Amino acid sequence: MHLLIRSLVSLCVAGAAMATHATETWILRTDLWQSPAFSTLTVNQDAKAVHGELDGDAIQGTLDGNAWTLQSTDTQGRTSRYRLRFEKDAMNGTADLPDPNNPARRVTHAVTGWKVPARGGGARTWDYRPTSYSNTWDADRRPVLVVWPGDTIHTSTLDSGGVDENGVTRALFGNPQTGPFFVAGAAPGDTLVVHIRRLKLNRDYADSLDTIVGRALGTSLVPQAEKLGKPIRWTLDREKELARPEGAAGALANYAVPVKPMLGGLAVAPGFGMPAISTGDTGRFGGNMDFNEVIEGNTVYLPVQQPGALLYLGDAHALQGDGETTQYALETSMDVTVTVDLIHDRTVSMPRVESPTRIMVLGQAGSLDDALKAASSGMVQWLQQDYGMDLSQAAQVLGTAVHFTVANLAGRSVGVAAAIDKAVLPAR
Amino acid sequence: MHLLIRSLVSLCVAGAAMATHATETWILRTDLWQSPAFSTLTVNQDAKAVHGELDGDAIQGTLDGNAWTLQSTDTQGRTSRYRLRFEKDAMNGTADLPDPNNPARRVTHAVTGWKVPARGGGARTWDYRPTSYSNTWDADRRPVLVVWPGDTIHTSTLDSGGVDENGVTRALFGNPQTGPFFVAGAAPGDTLVVHIRRLKLNRDYADSLDTIVGRALGTSLVPQAEKLGKPIRWTLDREKELARPEGAAGALANYAVPVKPMLGGLAVAPGFGMPAISTGDTGRFGGNMDFNEVIEGNTVYLPVQQPGALLYLGDAHALQGDGETTQYALETSMDVTVTVDLIHDRTVSMPRVESPTRIMVLGQAGSLDDALKAASSGMVQWLQQDYGMDLSQAAQVLGTAVHFTVANLAGRSVGVAAAIDKAVLPAR
Amino acid sequence: MHLLIRSLVSLCVAGAAMATHATETWILRTDLWQSPAFSTLTVNQDAKAVHGELDGDAIQGTLDGNAWTLQSTDTQGRTSRYRLRFEKDAMNGTADLPDPNNPARRVTHAVTGWKVPARGGGARTWDYRPTSYSNTWDADRRPVLVVWPGDTIHTSTLDSGGVDENGVTRALFGNPQTGPFFVAGAAPGDTLVVHIRRLKLNRDYADSLDTIVGRALGTSLVPQAEKLGKPIRWTLDREKELARPEGAAGALANYAVPVKPMLGGLAVAPGFGMPAISTGDTGRFGGNMDFNEVIEGNTVYLPVQQPGALLYLGDAHALQGDGETTQYALETSMDVTVTVDLIHDRTVSMPRVESPTRIMVLGQAGSLDDALKAASSGMVQWLQQDYGMDLSQAAQVLGTAVHFTVANLAGRSVGVAAAIDKAVLPAR
Amino acid sequence: MHLLIRSLVSLCVAGAAMATHATETWILRTDLWQSPAFSTLTVNQDAKAVHGELDGDAIQGTLDGNAWTLQSTDTQGRTSRYRLRFEKDAMNGTADLPDPNNPARRVTHAVTGWKVPARGGGARTWDYRPTSYSNTWDADRRPVLVVWPGDTIHTSTLDSGGVDENGVTRALFGNPQTGPFFVAGAAPGDTLVVHIRRLKLNRDYADSLDTIVGRALGTSLVPQAEKLGKPIRWTLDREKELARPEGAAGALANYAVPVKPMLGGLAVAPGFGMPAISTGDTGRFGGNMDFNEVIEGNTVYLPVQQPGALLYLGDAHALQGDGETTQYALETSMDVTVTVDLIHDRTVSMPRVESPTRIMVLGQAGSLDDALKAASSGMVQWLQQDYGMDLSQAAQVLGTAVHFTVANLAGRSVGVAAAIDKAVLPAR
Repeated sequence: MHLLIRSLVSLCVAGAAMATHATETWILRTDLWQSPAFSTLTVNQDAKAVHGELDGDAIQGTLDGNAWTLQSTDTQGRTSRYRLRFEKDAMNGTADLPDPNNPARRVTHAVTGWKVPARGGGARTWDYRPTSYSNTWDADRRPVLVVWPGDTIHTSTLDSGGVDENGVTRALFGNPQTGPFFVAGAAPGDTLVVHIRRLKLNRDYADSLDTIVGRALGTSLVPQAEKLGKPIRWTLDREKELARPEGAAGALANYAVPVKPMLGGLAVAPGFGMPAISTGDTGRFGGNMDFNEVIEGNTVYLPVQQPGALLYLGDAHALQGDGETTQYALETSMDVTVTVDLIHDRTVSMPRVESPTRIMVLGQAGSLDDALKAASSGMVQWLQQDYGMDLSQAAQVLGTAVHFTVANLAGRSVGVAAAIDKAVLPAR
Repeated sequence: MHLLIRSLVSLCVAGAAMATHATETWILRTDLWQSPAFSTLTVNQDAKAVHGELDGDAIQGTLDGNAWTLQSTDTQGRTSRYRLRFEKDAMNGTADLPDPNNPARRVTHAVTGWKVPARGGGARTWDYRPTSYSNTWDADRRPVLVVWPGDTIHTSTLDSGGVDENGVTRALFGNPQTGPFFVAGAAPGDTLVVHIRRLKLNRDYADSLDTIVGRALGTSLVPQAEKLGKPIRWTLDREKELARPEGAAGALANYAVPVKPMLGGLAVAPGFGMPAISTGDTGRFGGNMDFNEVIEGNTVYLPVQQPGALLYLGDAHALQGDGETTQYALETSMDVTVTVDLIHDRTVSMPRVESPTRIMVLGQAGSLDDALKAASSGMVQWLQQDYGMDLSQAAQVLGTAVHFTVANLAGRSVGVAAAIDKAVLPAR
Repeated sequence: MHLLIRSLVSLCVAGAAMATHATETWILRTDLWQSPAFSTLTVNQDAKAVHGELDGDAIQGTLDGNAWTLQSTDTQGRTSRYRLRFEKDAMNGTADLPDPNNPARRVTHAVTGWKVPARGGGARTWDYRPTSYSNTWDADRRPVLVVWPGDTIHTSTLDSGGVDENGVTRALFGNPQTGPFFVAGAAPGDTLVVHIRRLKLNRDYADSLDTIVGRALGTSLVPQAEKLGKPIRWTLDREKELARPEGAAGALANYAVPVKPMLGGLAVAPGFGMPAISTGDTGRFGGNMDFNEVIEGNTVYLPVQQPGALLYLGDAHALQGDGETTQYALETSMDVTVTVDLIHDRTVSMPRVESPTRIMVLGQAGSLDDALKAASSGMVQWLQQDYGMDLSQAAQVLGTAVHFTVANLAGRSVGVAAAIDKAVLPAR
Repeated sequence: MHLLIRSLVSLCVAGAAMATHATETWILRTDLWQSPAFSTLTVNQDAKAVHGELDGDAIQGTLDGNAWTLQSTDTQGRTSRYRLRFEKDAMNGTADLPDPNNPARRVTHAVTGWKVPARGGGARTWDYRPTSYSNTWDADRRPVLVVWPGDTIHTSTLDSGGVDENGVTRALFGNPQTGPFFVAGAAPGDTLVVHIRRLKLNRDYADSLDTIVGRALGTSLVPQAEKLGKPIRWTLDREKELARPEGAAGALANYAVPVKPMLGGLAVAPGFGMPAISTGDTGRFGGNMDFNEVIEGNTVYLPVQQPGALLYLGDAHALQGDGETTQYALETSMDVTVTVDLIHDRTVSMPRVESPTRIMVLGQAGSLDDALKAASSGMVQWLQQDYGMDLSQAAQVLGTAVHFTVANLAGRSVGVAAAIDKAVLPAR
């Protein structure tokens, strides 16, 4: 069988809508035969009676010392029972759930949890100095910081080889990421909004290769391409904002390209049932998108898959031609400032990027042909959702105004972006 | 067996290079078992002795009244003999050639020909009013006009449905083309240069559809897309240079897009062994490229496949989003002015387009993945040929400066363009 | 605009169904601005009154000497008028039709025609010795023979290089075909059934190459593959039914493969609006399918596109591995016997092949991914049409019993076959 | 940057070849900034002097109580130092290695390890009853059993939904696997040989769907396919070896397909730098291949990526049509018996399968087009390695004898198999 999410009955609790005065929010991690499932528990305690919501569905029970006994029943009459002991901000206990394939049986799973702190006032700016990095997009990695919608994060990223602004290796190669940041209130079905406020080069060089990735290499070039693959160091002139290959001669003696700093990696954690995924890979959750419009001044929209979204960022490039045809772009470390926000109960089928002048949708798939279909379909969805168009109208706009560009050719999946100039669109 | 050009020994005549004072140039059509082969015969006649070149190889013989008897021998000692009777500018006769698969046998083929007129002075501008159109890219269609490098052609094209500027159907639907124009001196191995001087809208409407082609349609949209496909007429405001869908309402009530007139079709005739090809199709010879950079002010480079190149043009669009996702772009008739030129003994692996600010190569193939490989490989070829780069340098330029866009999604083959801004390139 | 068939109003005549006692059937060729349209005219003449059907729609008029004046009116009240002069079995005249894009205007088109002879008794066997061959799948090529459903044709084919059983070149390389055979009564919307009775090797050698086509060549092999492409002659031991490479040594010293004679080319003529197509190419009409199940004992089903179907066959192979990875299979001439039949008013979405033990559908497209989709969808259609399955049932049969094989990798389009063993299917 | 393995200098120790009398073999796990690297350490201890090999390269040092201090130097003079404390079969300590991007710096990494037990006699049969399962192909999961080349493992697998032979859920859905089995002596560069001795159905039902995966679904079927996706339970008649859909009616009333038990999942752990990978995914290491030739009696060859290979197996199917077009095949639990073996210092570029009558290579990639290239290239490699063919000979064999089938369409990557009958091949 290939992966397909069977909804676990234990996670589908329901009941009459109830008004709760939630005073505490906890993130639960249920160990389902060694695979984690994350849930948001909000509880309101009234004497010994406890009621609340588990992922939006009603749950209730009693307090006994520093432990809760909670229970919920789904529409088919199947009951889930939790016994949770807490101490300060940590929790552990058990979930007693029906066997999803054999409802007569019950299975006990271990549960741990942590309490989401209360928001301390209005929008804040957080300065986060990373001390460790992640080589996977991982829902099971403890958040490095809890932030709230409207908050701004100022932090830094390593280059793809794990090297920081001082040339020191701080992580294993392979696009180690800063994060994850837990965005309080984010739940599956929401959209995470990431405003990229600032991408600031913080060293004077970038590392690249002189190669051409297989997906950009016609057969006629393959024999002569065998000698490619040499490392090329680029000097970053941060004042003039130009990149130059070190020691270039001949036709490239004066080659200088304007820098356009970008984040190659930007993602939320993948959803339930998906293991941690290499930071070299991409998905609906974003990932190693390597799209040269993920730049300062633009906004990225990602579909939340897990409680808190769990935002990761990394793999900055000083600049990149379309498709990252050199396998390594101009890889460098970066100072990064982003502001996060949430759109509740609204999801995007795939990553979106908005610039001051364009709306863009990134389709990612195993071939350019499939990625383009995803991009244009995602653009139709956007035109329908935000611009009030029907499909016929969206078709006419595509036919007269769409731009297709290639984002990424260097990964297992490739990316194609569909873009439309805001100038031809009605206001939204 | 799939098509593969076996060189016919009869066409491979050779010999010591000889200085000829060619006074006449003839285009020969040899009927090879009902398939035509075109050759350029240049002859210099001295009393009864005749010598010259057939497709660049030495040939010699005698004059006998109004007939030549010519003979050439290839490096393997195989002899081809021609008996050609001429009258004014027309010729017919026979070619006596070895059986390519059985050298002991000889086969007689019918030959016809026509004399290329002598150039009358310097560069000229030709006004050509078409009276018939071609629905195939066809090497076997008699040229409508003979022009010389540097000459300018002023003519007009029908819309893709065969309709002219007065709304009158002049040809069968399916991108009927104006031409072919015979460019004197052009031979296989040369590059035809087409400077697009002027593309002028000559009527006030264009016809399109509200569809989304299958290659741009994600599976999720397929069920609702079944109701698409309605004709949409667009008003062309030639003064304000805007196109508007007639009767649009709602989100498109004020929709207006700047026109950007382009030629969807531009081609030379396909080469020996290839039959006439639908003007809905594309190939190395150009064709129905539907690339929205084939516009006024830009220059197109095509690889010559036949004597005289045989330039066709048609299928103009008032404008087109990337990929012609509506199957029909804004189809309209057009007044067209082009200047042609030749680059001898230099071929391009695939169509190139040059704008004032960019160089572009169009890769065309059965999938976007293959088309992109063709585009980037063609761009590498250009950087090597004209900018003196080696492969490593070209790789670095691609990695930092290439733009990939999608030209065409509506045909059997698709097109991807690789572009580089001239600003980052050295002078050539 | 890319090719899209706009139905010509002039061809859509209608009216009340009428009982005609057709005594004559004519095939009309209407020259639509130099593109041919073929129609079937059946006429019944009663004194001076003439009535009949044109492509199934009512038409009527009068006889005047050896000329008919005919008229039909479509449901929108648009009238088509024909003036046709006949002499023996030939006809010429004019069609006066509305301008399809400008109904107020009328256009006169030249018409020619030929009379389909009356069937002379029951099923016959025809011996046809070809004297010319076609290098295109061409609706505009005069039939070499008129046959009727149930008739058997005994003929011969050249090898892909145009060489016959005596080693003599009879046609230009590129899969020259025998035919076309006009199957009386066939009309668009019908299915042509071709029972392959006999494929008999008629010489002792076949020609091939030692290459690997690009579609089967991984990048790692490309550099060493540059030296491939040599011609390999194979000895055909017709008694032992084995093929052996001439002069093979080392690991192939004893290499011998059982022959399995097949037709690489089998097609009906392409439909209205499509020009003649290279015999190296494929389409819904069949074509250069290069499928190693088109063998003696099997039956091929093709969707009729033109009056008379116009069956072509050629490009026989002594045998072929899946995909024809050597570009040339074991190319040889062949004696061929087929019986043709028709299924009226029933079309197949793509070519089908039936063996004594399997049903097979051939999907052909620009990529294997698209070809497989076409094959499996065509198989679902077959299971629905002939086996009474709904989509859910067809899905279960595919999931448990489908076999996918690769037919062809050597052409512009590729082929994937979906097959199901008859043993698991209900009787049909 | 996309993932690319930079060799860590710390793992490239070298030196003169030395004869060691290794008495102990340890598997070391070095924590490289939270990513694990696994190495094989063989040590021979002589008084206080210790020498040995680390992944085949010389290392030496001293014993101090229950701790070793070891050191190796690579060809560039860079030194790695280990301080390892052991207790019984467990070890922990530190590795002091140069910073790979900054050789002047050194970094200390934590090391743990375990001792590989000595082989107890000759080939054995192990009975392993699993108590936990893995939802990832994971190099960092502790082996459940250590076996030796020639040993046989008798065990069982869950169905893809995590359900055992008694209908009890034992793991999370998504192809939970049994294992990993550590094959002593296996090292990267070797090939693991898995002889499938027995695949025995151990319950009377299998679960499937009535769907058609997107990759097998032509656009024309998409609208009607929206209603598909229902679970279908199949009865497994283990005596008659037939599978029947429960409650089938109409055209499927008597539908019965012979079972052909297979393993959908079979893999070694992915290599250094790759995180754990979903058991729904595939790779060069094997994985969720879903190839219906991984059956009893056949042998699978996989390229070892980690010390001990770490064999996983699971996701058995009672039978499967080509491509697993129903997304779920006939998913069931199974009793499994395999014998493992090793081919040292010989790698296969991709998974191979050998049956009594055929050799097969499985290409896996993001598209069928790329997967087929991988399969045919892998077959060429096999013909070159084991049958002494040069490329020209291999090309001739492919062209006359290759069979291409489609293994898997249901995953992110697809599989195409190239097969050749042993009957036409020379002995190897």
